Amino acid sequence: MDINIISSRRNPMIMHLRKLNMDRGYRRETGLFLCAGLKLLNDAANAGMEIAEVIYSGRRPDIPDKAKVAAVTEDILKYASSMKSAPDVLFSCKIRSAGFNIEEGKYIILENVQDPGNIGTVIRTANAFNFDAVILAGACADPYGPKAVRASMGAVFRQKIIETGSADLVRMFKEKNIPLYAASTDHNSVDIRQAKIPDFLGIAIGNEGRGLSDVVTGAKTGGLRIPMNPMSESLNAAAAAAILMWELYRLS
Amino acid sequence: MDINIISSRRNPMIMHLRKLNMDRGYRRETGLFLCAGLKLLNDAANAGMEIAEVIYSGRRPDIPDKAKVAAVTEDILKYASSMKSAPDVLFSCKIRSAGFNIEEGKYIILENVQDPGNIGTVIRTANAFNFDAVILAGACADPYGPKAVRASMGAVFRQKIIETGSADLVRMFKEKNIPLYAASTDHNSVDIRQAKIPDFLGIAIGNEGRGLSDVVTGAKTGGLRIPMNPMSESLNAAAAAAILMWELYRLS
Repeated sequence: MDINIISSRRNPMIMHLRKLNMDRGYRRETGLFLCAGLKLLNDAANAGMEIAEVIYSGRRPDIPDKAKVAAVTEDILKYASSMKSAPDVLFSCKIRSAGFNIEEGKYIILENVQDPGNIGTVIRTANAFNFDAVILAGACADPYGPKAVRASMGAVFRQKIIETGSADLVRMFKEKNIPLYAASTDHNSVDIRQAKIPDFLGIAIGNEGRGLSDVVTGAKTGGLRIPMNPMSESLNAAAAAAILMWELYRLS
Repeated sequence: MDINIISSRRNPMIMHLRKLNMDRGYRRETGLFLCAGLKLLNDAANAGMEIAEVIYSGRRPDIPDKAKVAAVTEDILKYASSMKSAPDVLFSCKIRSAGFNIEEGKYIILENVQDPGNIGTVIRTANAFNFDAVILAGACADPYGPKAVRASMGAVFRQKIIETGSADLVRMFKEKNIPLYAASTDHNSVDIRQAKIPDFLGIAIGNEGRGLSDVVTGAKTGGLRIPMNPMSESLNAAAAAAILMWELYRLS
């Protein structure tokens, strides 16, 4: 039974968890990220994630043996999570860093995509459509930040995520001889309905405003275009990614 | 030339614009909504929107004759927009309320979808894929709120948007004899790759957590399912909508 219920914002564990929530650099330093809610705690345990710390209020949830656990007040849960209403549980778990190595497979690549909701949504969709990894190239939003984690709906525990620079990305695809396509609104690009899509490939989607960098554009195998009403200039990055990944999945 | 540059947060026009940004009820009362940025101002003018008020700092943009215009400080733009950095222009324009009437056409329906980014993204995607209207049923986030407007990327000016109750929705589709499908993850639903999709239809997508209401589920013509990895429970509402709308568009 838990006798002590933490109620102080100055408690070192609370300060640590709150910092995991707020500070990307601290997440990288510690190799940990923060998640909220009982459902995600179960998802994380089922996915074999290493859970480091758990705080909760109310009934003690089922928690893996190795985790450090504390009962806290609702106010502390709210404070540490920065959420409008307190979650039932907050927990930290270990980032599984995937070294950058690819084999024959299907990869969705986001380059300099800055909206964390888009990052999390793409991770969720990639997981639904059996992509081998989500590759985040350049200056993307942190996939382990609170908004991205929430948007991924647990897929962050199951989906391989690779972070790399744009030049390394291009080099790796060239080295492994895997075609690297660019999602494009350019009318010279191939309509995805007509494209002969290989079994193994990467598809790269660029920044919300500026598109893909010259590094990726210059090295691409070809451009793939989602046809649309000419009055529309483009789709949301996560919506475009969903359609491209679906188009590959639907044939499988 | 503008001699007076508004620098007071107490200025009635500034208070009015800020309230349009913050307060859904006030938007409905006045029939106006707020948009930020020169690009959207041009989009709005090109789409024939009625622009009511414009505030700007720096060079005076091209502004339709009937609008009320004021030069303001950057601080005021930031204050009225609640954005982290001041936009170049803020403007209000008139909500085009579409009475609820449907004819033979393609409709994407969101019921009780509460994320404004999802609402705006669906409006953008529906516009790209030539849907006749986006129907927002029940308690959806406001399509004219700042986050939804931003996510729609100008499509809010071009896309017909209908707001209605769930019971009225069901009644209207029945009355017009237009099939009303439910997006569903239920394995008894038809895989969209195998579905015989009619030329005119509505497809309804439910709340992020709870799905569609019994009212819509009970009245549906059938369920449409996006097949996926069984480990994934569902897709993000805007991602699912993108795939469903694309699937209809790709055949056209």
